[in-house]
Formats: sequence, C-alpha cells, structure tokens
Amino acid sequence: MERTAYRLADIAARFGGQVVGDAETKVQQIGTLEKATTGQIAFLANAKYRHQLEGSRASAVILSRADADATQIPRIVCDNPYSYFAKLSAFLNPLPECVPAIHASAVVGKGAQISPQAHIGPLVTVGEGAIVGAGTVVMAGCSIGDGAKLGENTLLYPRVTVYHGCVIGNHVILHSGAVIGADGFGMAWEDGRWLKIPQIGRVLIGDHVEVGANTTIDRGALDDTVIEEDVKLDNQIQVAHNVRIGAHTAIAGCVGIAGSANIGKYCRIGGSAGILGHLSIADGVEISSFTLVSKSIREKGVYSGIYPFSDKETWLKSASHLRHLDDMFARIKQLEKEIE
Amino acid sequence: MERTAYRLADIAARFGGQVVGDAETKVQQIGTLEKATTGQIAFLANAKYRHQLEGSRASAVILSRADADATQIPRIVCDNPYSYFAKLSAFLNPLPECVPAIHASAVVGKGAQISPQAHIGPLVTVGEGAIVGAGTVVMAGCSIGDGAKLGENTLLYPRVTVYHGCVIGNHVILHSGAVIGADGFGMAWEDGRWLKIPQIGRVLIGDHVEVGANTTIDRGALDDTVIEEDVKLDNQIQVAHNVRIGAHTAIAGCVGIAGSANIGKYCRIGGSAGILGHLSIADGVEISSFTLVSKSIREKGVYSGIYPFSDKETWLKSASHLRHLDDMFARIKQLEKEIE
Amino acid sequence: MERTAYRLADIAARFGGQVVGDAETKVQQIGTLEKATTGQIAFLANAKYRHQLEGSRASAVILSRADADATQIPRIVCDNPYSYFAKLSAFLNPLPECVPAIHASAVVGKGAQISPQAHIGPLVTVGEGAIVGAGTVVMAGCSIGDGAKLGENTLLYPRVTVYHGCVIGNHVILHSGAVIGADGFGMAWEDGRWLKIPQIGRVLIGDHVEVGANTTIDRGALDDTVIEEDVKLDNQIQVAHNVRIGAHTAIAGCVGIAGSANIGKYCRIGGSAGILGHLSIADGVEISSFTLVSKSIREKGVYSGIYPFSDKETWLKSASHLRHLDDMFARIKQLEKEIE
Repeated sequence: MERTAYRLADIAARFGGQVVGDAETKVQQIGTLEKATTGQIAFLANAKYRHQLEGSRASAVILSRADADATQIPRIVCDNPYSYFAKLSAFLNPLPECVPAIHASAVVGKGAQISPQAHIGPLVTVGEGAIVGAGTVVMAGCSIGDGAKLGENTLLYPRVTVYHGCVIGNHVILHSGAVIGADGFGMAWEDGRWLKIPQIGRVLIGDHVEVGANTTIDRGALDDTVIEEDVKLDNQIQVAHNVRIGAHTAIAGCVGIAGSANIGKYCRIGGSAGILGHLSIADGVEISSFTLVSKSIREKGVYSGIYPFSDKETWLKSASHLRHLDDMFARIKQLEKEIE
Repeated sequence: MERTAYRLADIAARFGGQVVGDAETKVQQIGTLEKATTGQIAFLANAKYRHQLEGSRASAVILSRADADATQIPRIVCDNPYSYFAKLSAFLNPLPECVPAIHASAVVGKGAQISPQAHIGPLVTVGEGAIVGAGTVVMAGCSIGDGAKLGENTLLYPRVTVYHGCVIGNHVILHSGAVIGADGFGMAWEDGRWLKIPQIGRVLIGDHVEVGANTTIDRGALDDTVIEEDVKLDNQIQVAHNVRIGAHTAIAGCVGIAGSANIGKYCRIGGSAGILGHLSIADGVEISSFTLVSKSIREKGVYSGIYPFSDKETWLKSASHLRHLDDMFARIKQLEKEIE
Repeated sequence: MERTAYRLADIAARFGGQVVGDAETKVQQIGTLEKATTGQIAFLANAKYRHQLEGSRASAVILSRADADATQIPRIVCDNPYSYFAKLSAFLNPLPECVPAIHASAVVGKGAQISPQAHIGPLVTVGEGAIVGAGTVVMAGCSIGDGAKLGENTLLYPRVTVYHGCVIGNHVILHSGAVIGADGFGMAWEDGRWLKIPQIGRVLIGDHVEVGANTTIDRGALDDTVIEEDVKLDNQIQVAHNVRIGAHTAIAGCVGIAGSANIGKYCRIGGSAGILGHLSIADGVEISSFTLVSKSIREKGVYSGIYPFSDKETWLKSASHLRHLDDMFARIKQLEKEIE
C-alpha cells in the first residue's frame, strides 16, 4: 500500500500543536522512539523515556511543552502527546474502508434489512429479520442471529457471533471470537437435577464500544444486559447476564463479572480481576489486577486484594501461617493481657 | 412472533400450585417484579425482594406459601417459586424448533450419518463418518470433526467446534465458540526442546450437559476426558485432558481445571476458581470464587481461599507484612518465652 | 482405520533402548498401564505408579533402567521413558496428512499465494496477498487475513483467525478458536472519552510453536508481538500487545500476560497466573499457578503467591485478620518494647 506523507505544518494545522524545527519535514507513519526510521514520527508521553530521544532516527517527534527542548529533531509540541499520537495515528491508519457489497457466499435470512452501504463478507450468516446499518462491515465467518440489529459504521472482525435479538450500536468494534448474547448461566435445582431457565433478555451495546477477542457477553435472564457507550473491553472477558457496565469504563483482559453486577461509569478494572454478582460499584472506581470484588463499593477510589508473590520458599513460610492468623491474634491478645 | 396467552388456571393444572385471585388472568411471558407489565407473570423466590411486590405491574405472581398474602395480585402459590418459574418459562420460551434440513451451503463428509430429523445449518462442516442424531440442531458455522458423534435433541449454537472422534450426548446444549476435543497440553522435555505427545483420547459428554460460550474441553492424552450427565459449565471455562466432572456439578465462568483432576458429583464451583491437576474432589463440595484448590478435598463442605480486597492503602499496609509472617510468628513465640 | 503393528525389535531399532522379553511382541498403539489391552504398549515414567505394573494387560511396557525388573511384561528399557513414549506415540499417531487441495467452498482473495502442496479446507477465507506454505493444512472455517503468512507444515484446526499481516512460522499448530493478531488494548483518554490507538504492529510466531484453543495473541501497537520458537501455549491464554515470549517457554491455561511484558526463554508458567505489563522475567523462571507477577524477576527460580485455601470457617477467621496485619505488627512491636 502506497502511504501518503504529510508535512508537520499540515499536521499541526489539522490537530493543533506548535511545530519546532523544519515544518516541511514529511512523515507517513508512527513509530516508537527506538525503532522509528525516516518518514516516521515518534512520540514521548512519559518523561521516563526521555533518554530514548537521543539516538532516535525518527524524522519527527511529538512532545509535551516540558520536553520541547529535549531534542533537536523536528517536533510538534502539544499539551497531551499521547492523545495527539492517538489522533494522528488514527488519521494515518484508518480502519478498513467499507466497500458496500454482500459476498456471494454469505447466507442472508428472509426479511433481513441490510443497508446498501453495508459490507457483508464471505461466509457470513445473517438471520431472519436482522438489520445491518450503513457503513457497517461484517467480516468473514460472522454469524448474526435472527432479529439482531447492528448499527452504523460498526466493524465485526471475522468469526464474531451475535445471538438473536441483540442490539449493537454505532461505531462499535467487535473482535474475532467475541460472542454476544449467549445464554446466561441460570438454572433452578429440583429433584436432584438442574432445570434450565430460558434466557429471554437481550444484550444492548452502546455506541463506540470495543469488545476484545473471545470476550463473551451473556444475554439477560429476563431483562437485558447493558453495555453503555464508550465502554472498552479487552480480550477474554466474561460478562454474565444482567450486568450493566457504565459509560467510558475500561476493563482489561480475563476479567470475570458475575450476574447482575452493576458497574459504574468511568471505572478502570485490571486484568484477571473478578466481580461477584448482584453488587454495585460506584463511578470512577479503579480495581487492581487479580482482585476479587466481593461486596459493593460505594466510593470512588482504588481497591486491591492481591496476594504478593515471592520466591517459593519465602511464600511457603508465610503462607503456612496464613491459616493460623486467628491463633496468632489470640496469642498477641494474651500477651497484652499478661503484660498488663 | 405471536405469543400464546395462558390462564392461571391452565398453568396450575399443568405445573401444580394453588391459584389465589382471578384464575382467568392470562399471561404469555415471564418478567421481573420490577419490569413486568400486563400479560406477564413475575415471581418472588427470595423474601429479600418482597418490597418489590408493591408497585409491580405484573398481571400475576408466583409465590411461596409464606408470601401468599403479601400481595393482592392474582398469584400462584407453590413450594418452590424459583423452579416453578423455571418450568413455566421453559414452557413459554421453548428452544428453537428443529426443522429437519441440511442447508445447501453445508459441507458433509463422506460416510457421515445425519438423521433425517436433524437440522444442519448454513456453512456447517460435518466430517467423514460423523453421526448426528434426530432432533439435533447444528447452527451456522459449526465444525464437526471426522467420526464425531452428536446425540439426539442436542443444540449447537453457531461456531462450535467438535474435534474428531468426540461423543456428545442427548439434550446437550453447546454455546457459540465452545471447543470440544482440542489437544491436551502434553509434551515431554528432551535435549533442550519440547516433544509433542499426541492426544489420542476423546471427550465424552453426557446427556443434559450445557457448555457455555468459548469454554474449552480438551481431549484425553490416552484415555478420555469425561463430563457426566447434567453437568452445567458456564462460559470461558478450561477443562484440561483426562479431567472427569461428576454428574450434576455446576461450574461458573472462567474456572480452570488442570489435567486429570477428578471432580465429584453435585459440586458447585465459583467463578475464576482453579483446580490443580491429578487431585480429587469429593461429591457435594462447594468451592468459592477465586479459590485455588491445590490439594484433594475428601469431605463435602464449603472451601475458600480468597484474598480480601480493601482500599489500596489498607491493602498495601497489610500486604507488605505478608512476606514477613514467619518473622512475626517467631517474635510472638519469643515474647511468650520471655514473659514466661 | 487399519493400524500397523510394530515389533518391539523394530521400535528399539528406530528409537533406541533395550528390549527385555519377547522382542517379537507386536504393538500398534499406546495405552495407560491401567487401561492398555492386547496390542498396546504402556509406559512407566514415575515410580509412584509402579504398582500399576501388576495387573496391567498391556502387551509391552516402556521402563527406566531402575524399573527394568519390576515386571515380566515384554519391555523396552531406556533412559527417559516419558520422552520415549512421546516419540513412539508421535510415530504411531502422526498428525493428519496434508492432502494438497483447495476446497471448492473456500474463498481466496486476489494475489494470495497458496502452495500447490498446501491444503485449504472447506469454508476457509484466505485474504488478499496472503501466503500459505507447502505442507500446511488450514481446516474448516479458518480466516486468514490480508497479507498474512503461514509457513510450511503448519496446522490450523477449524475456526482459527489470523488477522492481516501476521506471520506464522513452520511446524506450528494453532488450535480451534485461537485469534492471532486482534488489536491490542490501546487507547488515550481525552475530553471525557477514549480515543482508540490504531494497532499497527503484527504478531510473529516462530517455528514449532503450539497455541491452544481460544488463546488470543494481540498484534503490537507499533512494534510487533513476538512468540519465539518452540513456545507452547495452552488454552485460553491472553497475550497482550508487544509481549515477547522467549523460546521453549511453556504456559498453562488461562494465563493473562499484560502489554509489553518480556518473558525469558525456558520459563514455565502455571495455570491462571498473571503477568503485569512492562516487566521482565529472566530465563528459566518458574511461576506457580494463580500467582500474579507484579514486578520484574531477575533471577532464575520458582516464584509463588497463592492464597492457601481451607474450609470456609477457617478461611473466614484468618481472612478477617488480613486487613489488620499492620495493627498486629504494631502491637507486637509495642509488646517487645514493654518487655524490654
């Protein structure tokens, strides 16, 4: 693919910031300070990496005002180099264009409404009565269930499943292997065996949500499971039935969220964390990786529950006492009494 | 879809229980106390939610005898409202009907035996010599390996993989993205590199098992991996080679079970728990979420090993001592000696 | 399938070791000591299972020199029974043969270069300009992105996704549901919402790597994510963007590895462990299951951080003190002072 090169002057005209050095310098791609070469623009978002400026072969650099004089490389000085980089990179690396078409190998059910501006890739199935909006791209091997609805300008990478009746917003990205709307884990116990409870709710996914590879979001038991706008879910996350995730919350990989948990807006949840069912987490809460949230969190803040790792011998010694903390505590109390 | 409405009198005739109030009241769907509207029947299974009866707009309610007088809404009074709800919901919301057919886009290998009463959806592959029983539905994009066997009245949602030779029972449900029979993680170390050990066992799945989205069950190394009848597996569970899971056991999402673990019947295992390999868990054991079972459990009971979470500062203070528990213990002993 | 039987004499001629007993004994398959029957050869790799020799109905056994006389069954005595078994089993159970062909239902993009010695199964999509090497088998429903490259003698089980531009080596095995090259989890925060950072790096997978079912390996943000040769990844592992995993490292199921982590060669990582981002792990490190590695590990060794499980009452008693370890510590100090 032939890439277009842009002058720093053009970039600053479009995205703001101040050019220092040769504004005629042309760049066509982003790179890291360490590996960028001619024609690439790097960025410095964290002062910790300032030493990498020296020796960088990037043609240009995006910098904060504080670092403006830290190099002689032609540069764009701005308030937030990281978001500047994000916007410039999105401009230089647009998502695959939507070429309106329905591939001959796709299987489209009766009554499906596919926008003439949508792209349905090879070997896709679109169920009866499903709706696909304009500008939406459904890549190879996806399965869209009966009556499901995909909004506009949404992108499904290969092999995504959307179960019947689920609703996906606009500008959503679903990565390969994601499963939206499988049955929640609901059953009743009677006479020594399980009775399956039909899961008749849906999944509703808001605009600008991104769902990572092999992440699963279950449909509601009776009401819906709801993912609000601009939520970002990494890979291999499990979202159980009737969960609600508030707008702008970001969740890292391998997190498990149990049924009916209600997660606030603007939360950040670390990898492999867990959230038990039927509890609430306030807006703006941050959960550390590997932490199990076992009761509701009412106040904004950072919460952790990680067992610290160490070399195995050290761990063994400390862990062996862990089952006897209660006894240790009693002995301290006894000592205090005796001393008194 | 036009729904059929049923009188409470009809429902009680079919499922038991006692109608209190207008037995001519008609309902056609289940709803929650909070959101049910006209034509819907709600249920109260937990006294904690009794306050929701007030103000509910449900046309009818399923209640326990203890709560029989807690509302004036027409109601069905029964012993176990939750299982009553499960059965009524299954009646009102049956699984997709099996319309016998093999879609023209499916690819069927030679020697495959597909019942004339089975449904093979679009873009499915059925391997050579595979068997699909009557009433079984295989939805879009599934891949059934050579010689695999699917029983009767079983349902595979889109994009399920069943590897060669695996055996799936009757009335089984496999959700999208499930992978049954991939190779177990077996290798030998020799001369500074890994030798792959062929995994020649199968996976055997009993009747009435449900397997969640993106759950993986590995084939056995030599003997088979076995999932007994009525086992319920949630999403994103990993079951390694040669594991056996006893009948009626239910396992929540994101659990990892290592090779050759032997899990009893009637167990309940919480989300993101782990079970190490080559150990046994007795019947009726309950494991808390986020708990690693690192040795065999011989007795029925509830077992936990969760690091309690707290605000980050509290956690940091306590966690910093965790590596020095052995020292704390020694100092207590020393104090006791000195006092003596 | 008709299996070929081999004399112990033939096997020893091919793989070494010394035959004790009737060298004319014929075997055609491997079995466990417990379940092997006539025509099968079992092995004893761990003295703990020596009692299983008695009563075994295997036609032959592979043993270490130390166990050479522990049975009268015809046997092959060798240095490392486990790797001997691995090699013999690989010989008796070869991977599915590559029958060169492109299935009529496959969809191949323009400019794709598929070796005449490769096998492209049914309902596969191969993107524009993608390359598939000789001897490589791509099974049903896989999706190979534009410009992706698969090496030689590589095997993709059904429903694997390889995103655009990713590079897979020779003799690689990718299991069903694996997703190679989805976007890393990268975004910048600005004006109250997330900006997506295009992920323009690739995934590079070396020779002899095996990737388990539903494992996900994200493409790099700018530079590449790299999996070196002979790395073995079990099922449902999440590898974030720009991670590097050193040669010969083996990682068990459900592990999560955060962005830019750099894992050494010859490491072994237990199931459901986690590794935080931007840290380094030395060569030869072993991490226990369920352990979160929260800082770099500079020295070879075994590292753990597991909360020990117990019956729930015991756990509750000890866990309740965990948040007050700091207070316990202070009280010990105070006692020491008072005694002094």
